Amino acid sequence: MLEELKKEVYEANMLLEKYELVTFTWGNVSGIDWDKKLMVIKPSGVSYDKLKPEDMVVMDLDYNVVEGTLNPSTDAPTHIYLYNKFPNLKGICHTHSLYATSWCQAGKDIPIQGTTHADNFYGDIPCTEHLDVKKIKNSYEYETGVIIAEKFEKNNIKVEDMPAVLVNNHGPFTFSNSPKKAVEIAKILEVVAQMTLNSYMLSKQENNLTQELMDKHYFRKHGKDSYYGQK
Amino acid sequence: MLEELKKEVYEANMLLEKYELVTFTWGNVSGIDWDKKLMVIKPSGVSYDKLKPEDMVVMDLDYNVVEGTLNPSTDAPTHIYLYNKFPNLKGICHTHSLYATSWCQAGKDIPIQGTTHADNFYGDIPCTEHLDVKKIKNSYEYETGVIIAEKFEKNNIKVEDMPAVLVNNHGPFTFSNSPKKAVEIAKILEVVAQMTLNSYMLSKQENNLTQELMDKHYFRKHGKDSYYGQK
Amino acid sequence: MLEELKKEVYEANMLLEKYELVTFTWGNVSGIDWDKKLMVIKPSGVSYDKLKPEDMVVMDLDYNVVEGTLNPSTDAPTHIYLYNKFPNLKGICHTHSLYATSWCQAGKDIPIQGTTHADNFYGDIPCTEHLDVKKIKNSYEYETGVIIAEKFEKNNIKVEDMPAVLVNNHGPFTFSNSPKKAVEIAKILEVVAQMTLNSYMLSKQENNLTQELMDKHYFRKHGKDSYYGQK
Amino acid sequence: MLEELKKEVYEANMLLEKYELVTFTWGNVSGIDWDKKLMVIKPSGVSYDKLKPEDMVVMDLDYNVVEGTLNPSTDAPTHIYLYNKFPNLKGICHTHSLYATSWCQAGKDIPIQGTTHADNFYGDIPCTEHLDVKKIKNSYEYETGVIIAEKFEKNNIKVEDMPAVLVNNHGPFTFSNSPKKAVEIAKILEVVAQMTLNSYMLSKQENNLTQELMDKHYFRKHGKDSYYGQK
Repeated sequence: MLEELKKEVYEANMLLEKYELVTFTWGNVSGIDWDKKLMVIKPSGVSYDKLKPEDMVVMDLDYNVVEGTLNPSTDAPTHIYLYNKFPNLKGICHTHSLYATSWCQAGKDIPIQGTTHADNFYGDIPCTEHLDVKKIKNSYEYETGVIIAEKFEKNNIKVEDMPAVLVNNHGPFTFSNSPKKAVEIAKILEVVAQMTLNSYMLSKQENNLTQELMDKHYFRKHGKDSYYGQK
Repeated sequence: MLEELKKEVYEANMLLEKYELVTFTWGNVSGIDWDKKLMVIKPSGVSYDKLKPEDMVVMDLDYNVVEGTLNPSTDAPTHIYLYNKFPNLKGICHTHSLYATSWCQAGKDIPIQGTTHADNFYGDIPCTEHLDVKKIKNSYEYETGVIIAEKFEKNNIKVEDMPAVLVNNHGPFTFSNSPKKAVEIAKILEVVAQMTLNSYMLSKQENNLTQELMDKHYFRKHGKDSYYGQK
Repeated sequence: MLEELKKEVYEANMLLEKYELVTFTWGNVSGIDWDKKLMVIKPSGVSYDKLKPEDMVVMDLDYNVVEGTLNPSTDAPTHIYLYNKFPNLKGICHTHSLYATSWCQAGKDIPIQGTTHADNFYGDIPCTEHLDVKKIKNSYEYETGVIIAEKFEKNNIKVEDMPAVLVNNHGPFTFSNSPKKAVEIAKILEVVAQMTLNSYMLSKQENNLTQELMDKHYFRKHGKDSYYGQK
Repeated sequence: MLEELKKEVYEANMLLEKYELVTFTWGNVSGIDWDKKLMVIKPSGVSYDKLKPEDMVVMDLDYNVVEGTLNPSTDAPTHIYLYNKFPNLKGICHTHSLYATSWCQAGKDIPIQGTTHADNFYGDIPCTEHLDVKKIKNSYEYETGVIIAEKFEKNNIKVEDMPAVLVNNHGPFTFSNSPKKAVEIAKILEVVAQMTLNSYMLSKQENNLTQELMDKHYFRKHGKDSYYGQK
């Protein structure tokens, strides 16, 4: 069942190690088959050197395991909530990567100070609000999805243009149109997070991009008038 | 004698290099056989590429070498004191890893600002008081064990829930239910120490976890109601 | 056509990965044949593990592609502008390397605080002004060349003595008398950028080199009285 | 001539790369034969992958090249001055390693805040005064030796107990009883420099070692009452 997607999700999870985004078993990537409305995700707490494509767990969008003998990632409800909320997503990645997580720990958005950022993220990378005590006790992982979606709605941010979010006190989630691309965004986020930690230390005065420079870089890579790369 | 434990302790010591927690011969790991009341520890100042399982030194809990032609780690009395004090420990690891040691040098607890921290340590990671001058001159390594235990007692911290401590001006010790796991905790401590140095630089205002978020993350991985990983 | 130069430019681009100056496809290096007045540059958005010498794109100094089936780097107009402006250059390199880009994001010159800097750059490494909104909308990449040249003219800096510039909010460009050397300068710039971020954190008071120490180090390596290295 | 020492000095120079203390051709190590009063040093500006033992240059203590077709390191006069001044030295190493050089650029001593430091350096690691303008113009490299020696004399520091110095605005020199050990000290200095940069950022209030803790750590590894390692 979903052999192709399982392989894709497995390979995306293995990229987490290659890109140095994880320690031990931390981190997880999922993919989705929108026709069948089934999500494939990494099992919980299995070390990367033992992981196999057939270990991937299949879940439906009502939060039920449909296939697989292993427990799914504990963060699976966050992934499912986000797929339900944003039906144009095809891959989601969660890590505790060093620098992105440092911004989560500080509870701060990453301000847009460079074109490396603007090439990939259209605006400041948002950090979520703190979760209510009650929401932590019940359905914590589900509520993590809710608070992400609330941030995007409240600030009128589109996931197509902002493929990353920092969960306060926790870690980043990234999204894209494939599991592999979600991991690539996680890597880019990590680089941007480190660059902007550095520039913040050099100058507390923000040296943010103008709207025009942000537009130029974002839209030379994205959308119908893009001219970066090969067609 | 204790061939199995020696191998286990040897392999845990070799992990120190793999996880990039040591420079040259720094760092040491021990394990214990509680039935025989004997500890196995790395010899002092032997380089990792020459270390062999049979070089491990066996000591009793009265601080005597029982077997081995090499001198034990100079820190052996700290290990033995801690085993005597906390009989549920089965492995202890000491390093001078870069970021954890930086917090020791600053003489500060690592505040709990993220779930990476809460997944593994239930509260701020404590830094010990300074040692009295007199205690440094006599039985320094033994007194290092004493001041660690005093910190846990005074602050009512349980080693089961707080498997790491920062010795002021010195370096970290980590403990667990096996030598290997003590080294894994040392690696996690190092990551958390670096993340929290970063978040401290981004925001001097503490953005600490609520009690509820700390409970959620710690107890979803530890204790009878845990649901992380595979059963 | 220009097989030798294509190979040289290809190899210089591959050095970007070896020296850890790039993530994914970021960064580009060009070289020039001044007799034929033709520039060779990396194609846009091709990953380094797929790049081949014959993929290099040939352009004339009027910004036209002369040979090559792939699109040239989007930054090609910046390179061409700089070659037209500074006819003693033979190689140009652009990266988003971590530490140099951090200074670009902060919008600050790198002050000359060490001999590592003075061995290679004669003075503070300049950061450009912000581009006018209008210039971003039209011919952005061309205007990036213009603003670099303006900085050098206005501050009376010679490219021979200052083979690097920080483009504000963007990333560094380095130049030299070959594509390979331009990449080597990019590596040295990265090291100097990290050192000076560190020294800035240790001491906000500037501890800049005296004119004499700068002269001594720069001119023992460069110019007719140099005595560093082998003749 | 001096084949054994040349091999030793060559191997020590190659360790600079292994320990990640150098970029390109930066850095140099020397050794000395005190019976013959001859120093062996790396040639200037030769890349490490082309270096051979027979390339090492032999010089006498009057600053003359005695054997070798290549130019000696430009820093050779600093090495020779230090050997003449401190006849118990047998190996000297100079690098531009990242973190030690950052302290040089800030012009600050590294305060003694940890036992990693005290295990190897008995007190704060000194940074030299700025050189007089006149001394830079004439015999710069010789004068670098002079200002190092002056710092040790003025502050009553013994090279046996303080095997490292930070040359202001420049880079570190380390010394020991063999070329290899001088490189090992350079590696330890680099680790201590990074740790103390970190602890400085965590706490501007100094948390320096007491005299007793410094004595305990330094003398458990050095001198007649040492008990670290194997006999």
